[in-house]
Amino acid sequence: MQTFAAFHPPPRLLMGPGPSNVAPSVLEALSRPLVGHLDPTFVKMMEEIKTMLRQVFLTKNEMTFPVSGTGSAGMEFCLVNLIEPGDDVIIGVNGVFGTRMVEVAGRCGANVLKVETAWGRIIEPQQLADALEKVSRPKLVAIVHAETSTGALTPAEELSDLAHNAGALFLLDTVTSLGGCPVRIDDWQVDAVYSGTQKCLSCPPGLAPVSLSPRALEVATKRKSKVQSWYLDVNLLAAYWGQDRVYHHTAPVSMNYSLHEALRLVLNEGLEHRWRRHQQNHLALKAGLEAIGLPITSQEGHQLWPLNAVAVPDGIDEAAVRKGLLSDFNIEIGAGLGPLKGKIWRVGLMGETSSKTNVKAFLAALAHVLNDSGRKTNVEAALEAAAW
Amino acid sequence: MQTFAAFHPPPRLLMGPGPSNVAPSVLEALSRPLVGHLDPTFVKMMEEIKTMLRQVFLTKNEMTFPVSGTGSAGMEFCLVNLIEPGDDVIIGVNGVFGTRMVEVAGRCGANVLKVETAWGRIIEPQQLADALEKVSRPKLVAIVHAETSTGALTPAEELSDLAHNAGALFLLDTVTSLGGCPVRIDDWQVDAVYSGTQKCLSCPPGLAPVSLSPRALEVATKRKSKVQSWYLDVNLLAAYWGQDRVYHHTAPVSMNYSLHEALRLVLNEGLEHRWRRHQQNHLALKAGLEAIGLPITSQEGHQLWPLNAVAVPDGIDEAAVRKGLLSDFNIEIGAGLGPLKGKIWRVGLMGETSSKTNVKAFLAALAHVLNDSGRKTNVEAALEAAAW
Repeated sequence: MQTFAAFHPPPRLLMGPGPSNVAPSVLEALSRPLVGHLDPTFVKMMEEIKTMLRQVFLTKNEMTFPVSGTGSAGMEFCLVNLIEPGDDVIIGVNGVFGTRMVEVAGRCGANVLKVETAWGRIIEPQQLADALEKVSRPKLVAIVHAETSTGALTPAEELSDLAHNAGALFLLDTVTSLGGCPVRIDDWQVDAVYSGTQKCLSCPPGLAPVSLSPRALEVATKRKSKVQSWYLDVNLLAAYWGQDRVYHHTAPVSMNYSLHEALRLVLNEGLEHRWRRHQQNHLALKAGLEAIGLPITSQEGHQLWPLNAVAVPDGIDEAAVRKGLLSDFNIEIGAGLGPLKGKIWRVGLMGETSSKTNVKAFLAALAHVLNDSGRKTNVEAALEAAAW
Repeated sequence: MQTFAAFHPPPRLLMGPGPSNVAPSVLEALSRPLVGHLDPTFVKMMEEIKTMLRQVFLTKNEMTFPVSGTGSAGMEFCLVNLIEPGDDVIIGVNGVFGTRMVEVAGRCGANVLKVETAWGRIIEPQQLADALEKVSRPKLVAIVHAETSTGALTPAEELSDLAHNAGALFLLDTVTSLGGCPVRIDDWQVDAVYSGTQKCLSCPPGLAPVSLSPRALEVATKRKSKVQSWYLDVNLLAAYWGQDRVYHHTAPVSMNYSLHEALRLVLNEGLEHRWRRHQQNHLALKAGLEAIGLPITSQEGHQLWPLNAVAVPDGIDEAAVRKGLLSDFNIEIGAGLGPLKGKIWRVGLMGETSSKTNVKAFLAALAHVLNDSGRKTNVEAALEAAAW
């Protein structure tokens, strides 16, 4: 029998597309002894999580809770509950996660009309307006707010108005925006939203915060066919996470401890302050990178603060640079996906990771690795440009 | 804005149907700093988890890994991947979890034939043989090995033979048996199996270890229709958990740290020794309970070691007793479900919880609470009968 030693992770600075670094108090919360998932103390804590999630989503939606799976389970939760076979659905596709929504909606039996644009650009209101002209009874319009694969932030409010005017529900993916830039579920009249814990909330991956408007919940409650996923059926989950606590599954107890603490940290910092911090560090990174000839590639004016798509210079082996950062500096950054593979690095400044110190450490490390790769890079210029 | 204090759980002795108590080193593993889910060190640890899961399941199945959800997600994983609409499926129903499999299989479009027996009893081979006579081309036979809702352990090997002789795949729910009593996936020729982490593996809830035989994997690979769940599609998960590590979702990093450590503890103890420990503590508890007139209600000869269904005496308010145990002794036990509601308590002796000390503590506490309820109970008799 093969035996293994205990696992001791190296101390990484997590500047990829997630997970981000996690605060010590969140790690400490994870290590607390377990209670039962129906224990009165746990039920009370779950209620506090629901209340804090509403504060972070800026919503009054009663149906707001963490799905017991990762962000992708949150996506599937929203789509399987709202879509019935034969429904017409419009999905914005400008990266990996719009593409994924199309795939999931197709598995729900939807007729999907894609609104496509180049990866790195946003979905424009006119594009959605044109698409809505083509569909007589759209059930749902689904948009990725922050495309983690490209670093573009699509403004949601006008798209939401267009969807509602056409009688459709409006769904928003906020996996990489929640806690890192403005997300206003009630102001924008978002009917269904999902997120992940491991991005700007700086909690480990494993839960997917979701919220459904009363209108979306009614659609899910009154549907003709059963939800194809038992695990993600909101009609069952409502009874588990509601006042009755009807046994459904066993909630991930420790993960919820950590989410409780992570949400406390977000709210103690204050949403406005937290958004501003993400903006400032993004701008500093951007200035530093531009000073050494590495522009942010996503659409100007719509660049995500938590996730920066950085152009890989000609003649540079992008994988070797990532490997050098990891092995020599313990810094993780992400690779490009799909059509952006080999063309960009994805540099995350999410939650705990978004700090002046980390921006400087990254610029210095990157300059060093690029110099090693034969590309003359002026680290002082980068750091000076990044000054706050 | 409502603010909340940090959550500090009370020190519970977890003797319900799960979660069970977790070893200090597993809690400590949870609190280690995060690395990325594609980090080479994490990939290596994931490989170790897969190897250790094979050792615990006693299988050589390559496709063995933890699903990123709770035990119920493991159930759904097995069923959505193996069932296509119109398939004939036979499911043993002798408690909550067989009932749940029927529900999930129905949502996959299966024609389900139920093999039913009273809650607390096992599924008999003759029952399955009779059912197989009625179905010309059964695709799958699904059985709950350890029914957590009733405390009955259905022997799997003969049922597996019957299923295979009829050309069907054989699926086994081992949520409450894995790590607490013999589970031999290859010897019993089980094609699909799922479990949970929070029972006899003594890891927090949040992951579902699963394993598919090459034959089951081939069925999933060659199916005509797409798997209805994108999140649980083994064809995508195989590429993520395989050598290529193709991005699918973000694995719950911290939960996998804890599973790695929990599996190490299981294998360091040794499966045989661990099973024997569960048996001995079950027998001691049973003797102690019988000495005070509280029999185990599940079928004699097939009583689960990790989960004991205890008869509630006439005239006793079962909820008040559970409440007394929790508030006065910090001991959690479970209530009966469905037809067993109000008739049984479910007393878990799973993983770390299964110890002499805990059996004694529980008997003493229960006797005290029963005496308070007006039922004269001789604590000395219980403890003496429970002596090892």
